[in-house]
Amino acid sequence: MRIETQRYTERFGSVRLNEVQKVLELDSGKAEEPNSTKNIAVLKIEEEVIWDYENKMAIVVPVKNERLKLFEGVISGVPHDCLLIVVSNSQRGRIDRFRMEKDALAQYCHFTRRPAFIIHQKDPILTKAVAESGYTELLGEDELLSNGKCEGMIAAMLLAMVLKKSYIGFIDADNYFPGSVWEYVKCYAAGFSLAKSPYSMVRILWRYKPKVSAGMYFRKLGRVSEITNKYMNSLISANTGFETEIIRTANAGEHAMTLSLAQLLTYASGYAVETRELLSIFEGFGGVLPLAQPTVVKQGVEIFQIETRNPHLHEERGTKHLQADMLLPSLSAVYWSQLCDGDTRENIIDELISQGILKQKKEEPPTPKMYRSPCEVNLEKFQEIMSENLASYSALAEENSSK
Amino acid sequence: MRIETQRYTERFGSVRLNEVQKVLELDSGKAEEPNSTKNIAVLKIEEEVIWDYENKMAIVVPVKNERLKLFEGVISGVPHDCLLIVVSNSQRGRIDRFRMEKDALAQYCHFTRRPAFIIHQKDPILTKAVAESGYTELLGEDELLSNGKCEGMIAAMLLAMVLKKSYIGFIDADNYFPGSVWEYVKCYAAGFSLAKSPYSMVRILWRYKPKVSAGMYFRKLGRVSEITNKYMNSLISANTGFETEIIRTANAGEHAMTLSLAQLLTYASGYAVETRELLSIFEGFGGVLPLAQPTVVKQGVEIFQIETRNPHLHEERGTKHLQADMLLPSLSAVYWSQLCDGDTRENIIDELISQGILKQKKEEPPTPKMYRSPCEVNLEKFQEIMSENLASYSALAEENSSK
Repeated sequence: MRIETQRYTERFGSVRLNEVQKVLELDSGKAEEPNSTKNIAVLKIEEEVIWDYENKMAIVVPVKNERLKLFEGVISGVPHDCLLIVVSNSQRGRIDRFRMEKDALAQYCHFTRRPAFIIHQKDPILTKAVAESGYTELLGEDELLSNGKCEGMIAAMLLAMVLKKSYIGFIDADNYFPGSVWEYVKCYAAGFSLAKSPYSMVRILWRYKPKVSAGMYFRKLGRVSEITNKYMNSLISANTGFETEIIRTANAGEHAMTLSLAQLLTYASGYAVETRELLSIFEGFGGVLPLAQPTVVKQGVEIFQIETRNPHLHEERGTKHLQADMLLPSLSAVYWSQLCDGDTRENIIDELISQGILKQKKEEPPTPKMYRSPCEVNLEKFQEIMSENLASYSALAEENSSK
Repeated sequence: MRIETQRYTERFGSVRLNEVQKVLELDSGKAEEPNSTKNIAVLKIEEEVIWDYENKMAIVVPVKNERLKLFEGVISGVPHDCLLIVVSNSQRGRIDRFRMEKDALAQYCHFTRRPAFIIHQKDPILTKAVAESGYTELLGEDELLSNGKCEGMIAAMLLAMVLKKSYIGFIDADNYFPGSVWEYVKCYAAGFSLAKSPYSMVRILWRYKPKVSAGMYFRKLGRVSEITNKYMNSLISANTGFETEIIRTANAGEHAMTLSLAQLLTYASGYAVETRELLSIFEGFGGVLPLAQPTVVKQGVEIFQIETRNPHLHEERGTKHLQADMLLPSLSAVYWSQLCDGDTRENIIDELISQGILKQKKEEPPTPKMYRSPCEVNLEKFQEIMSENLASYSALAEENSSK
């Protein structure tokens, strides 16, 4: 893979925010001869280097009643050397969609000889492990893990720690192109290979997000992302005193981080999760608020934003879904951040009113439901309970047990 | 890459026709340990093996007034180790689209440090080389190379021979997904790695060819392909005496072959080219007609059909384009093959009448314009003229000459 070098890096306390880097070439071929002519603007990341990172990476595919053909396509795009973890919150009962996902994954893993894990968000052992680790805010009134993408993601992070991985990447299950999924993972690995800090994050910017209507229109950014980026940048500008447009990936569902970073962050419920991760980094390590982990400051936190070559084509869910489900939680996360200044808050209210989501000036967006960082709970307890039962979550569990 | 093994092979004289093989995993990771558990139904093609084939392969992108963004995307998906050859028949003159393509390619090659060649179909030196080699049927009334995809493809084959490549693969320039392009090339390499004969061909079957209208509908095959496959299979069945459905890729624009095979085949003008290649193989090596090259028979000709993981999403050109421009030439090629039996001919006429392309039973489809096989012309002469001027077709020609 060949990508642009980091041409510009902004700093927010000990956080290094890299400008967007474009992928130039999906496949840069065999390793180069030493001393070959280099281009100062472009980096070649050798396949061998990427494989090494993939080997230490868990790729999490959160899924909820997704069409099986799309799910199958997505898993077929994940490079073999990554450990695949599927966290499903699909329906069970008479039509057992989780069972179908499990069967599809088992068949796929049987033929491709790859390890993978699949777990249901409401799994009783998972619930027990979460409860006994003291991560009780993750549990709902029914005493099972709450619904929501964020809750599944946190469970996956804990699982990836049990499985001794160093990196975790997320990929949505509604992607039409296995080739895009493949590229996301290569971007994650490429980003980590550039990082100088063990606390780093890679966020994907899609080159285009085509709108499928009559024909195809290649948009640069979704509406929601554009708006969230704007207020996120406004928050940073207010804190640093320099106006910035550095953040282009405030809503990036496709993103990855080191587990060392993941366990230090706080998370917000539902669709606010990706936006909240950034805020958590700025709050913890931006130097404005008291430092979350003083030991981290020396190495700092690094954020990479990588623009793919492939467009992103996924299931369309309509305007209502976008606004109510995505924009409001994202902007609420910014609004309620301890770093958010008065002007940005006021502009967020105006935005939400103009979008028809809030009715009047006096209303405030709802406070996001927050989760502590994983490092604050009893991870050993979680690990103890899950380790014993790990084999049963393997995609090939049934194949193995029938031997 | 992991693909299905060849589960079934049909024979037509010395031609081995392999059933469709599906791609299971785009990226199968690092090379396997020796003695690891194998699955008899699945093959893992190691990346190192693929790189070796890419290194000996020219990838030809024929382009004609394509949108530049699509062209750029396509070239960015071609693995670095392949030699890229762009054959353009785009407009020149006041709006010089060929110039734009050349500039885009030069910029791309500058940053990715990859070699590439770009040549216009009406290039005077190319014309001279074609004329002096005796390939005069390729020239039009204006004494320049004729318009048409096939004519550009033949020029590219001759050029690939001059450039000492062993394999040639074609990729259309109207593809929306660089990741699909990448997969096509991996499939070509995977196919060649399975071939036991130096005379082999790989044809791509798309997993889906989505129809973009209101939403997305994932079709298995285009209409034209379905019809052409039907009559191609009917022709084979009539000659072997066993009904078959083996051919699924009669119109495959995405295909590759060894140059040893390419130079033995005869070609048909325009959109019939891909269909005609198969017919030429069956006529020459099917054992029904006198053998085209008796020496080939021992090793035989091998045809692989590989189904991609990625869907194929390209510019839609509407129904009229499909029928008049593609279906008629494809079926004409089948109709006028020396192997075509009476029943198949009659059914083709009926098909063309029902499609509204022919008016009445007595009409016959037009005879395709045919080109001799490259081995029958004076390739040394072509090579002599082109070799001298090769540097001027390099994408980086201007960069190099200004040094």
